[in-house]
Amino acid sequence: MKGFTVWFTGLPCSGKTTLARRLEKALLEKGRVSSVLDGDEVRERICKGLGFSKEGRDENIRRISFVAREVTKTGGAAIACAISPYKALRAAARAEIGNFIEVFADCPVKVCATRDVKGMYKKAFAGEIKNFTGVDDPYEAPENPEVRVRTDQESEEACVEKILAKLRALGYLSA
Amino acid sequence: MKGFTVWFTGLPCSGKTTLARRLEKALLEKGRVSSVLDGDEVRERICKGLGFSKEGRDENIRRISFVAREVTKTGGAAIACAISPYKALRAAARAEIGNFIEVFADCPVKVCATRDVKGMYKKAFAGEIKNFTGVDDPYEAPENPEVRVRTDQESEEACVEKILAKLRALGYLSA
Repeated sequence: MKGFTVWFTGLPCSGKTTLARRLEKALLEKGRVSSVLDGDEVRERICKGLGFSKEGRDENIRRISFVAREVTKTGGAAIACAISPYKALRAAARAEIGNFIEVFADCPVKVCATRDVKGMYKKAFAGEIKNFTGVDDPYEAPENPEVRVRTDQESEEACVEKILAKLRALGYLSA
Repeated sequence: MKGFTVWFTGLPCSGKTTLARRLEKALLEKGRVSSVLDGDEVRERICKGLGFSKEGRDENIRRISFVAREVTKTGGAAIACAISPYKALRAAARAEIGNFIEVFADCPVKVCATRDVKGMYKKAFAGEIKNFTGVDDPYEAPENPEVRVRTDQESEEACVEKILAKLRALGYLSA
């Protein structure tokens, strides 16, 4: 089977994890188990001690990219969830992974902030957290992602269907 | 395809990497790409800053186990090379990975030491390196590995053939 990585990028609370879990479920229904490389588990399993400085966050991305590469090259499906705000790091992930489907979870900052149950945006706007993507740290939006979803305008089902359609169009899933 | 992990354990210089690369090649000839999780690359990609204390080495094993698990669950073939001297950590890797083929690269310390091009054993015997497995740090040999190879007595070809035979017997490779 042809391996691939669906790489979600977007602001904090833009809907990456929600869509990743739905995509995982949709793929499982087609008989395909995915490796979901997401926040807390990745931090716990391969990133202990990294912290949230720019260096720490960049290294986090590079480690997710490594695991996704290994899953992809052995024929598996990886689903990476990472803010991954910098184009250069996403380009490096794309280059090493190869079969790379970039999904831009596009959503205005103010909508993301209303979804934030942990209150991170509030703290970032108040200056209590520094280097928060979308507030005082840049998010470099993808110019040509394989899929762009507007999570504030499209339903979750519609977003996942767009991703599945792209996977079929690229030959990663049978039609 | 059914995923699996071949987990090499054994003393430093017992032949784990050599066999892993040969196994990788043999699997590739059967059309199967493997993820070889070995020393330097793993250290560079997911273990920067860990160091070689007991904690650092244990964490290194747990990270390899995580990657092998993700590769295995998505249907891929992983080949892990790690001294992995402690039974408890190997048991934890086996438990989380599931389809786990433990290969014990068995070789007497004195033979391993003669193969050591980096001179690590010499330094360990001289007390210049501390906590060196097989010298002043324990190696807990597996009691019931799926495969045991005596790398000082069997040819590389014979060792790899034993592993392939076990993979076939367990249904991971077609006969």
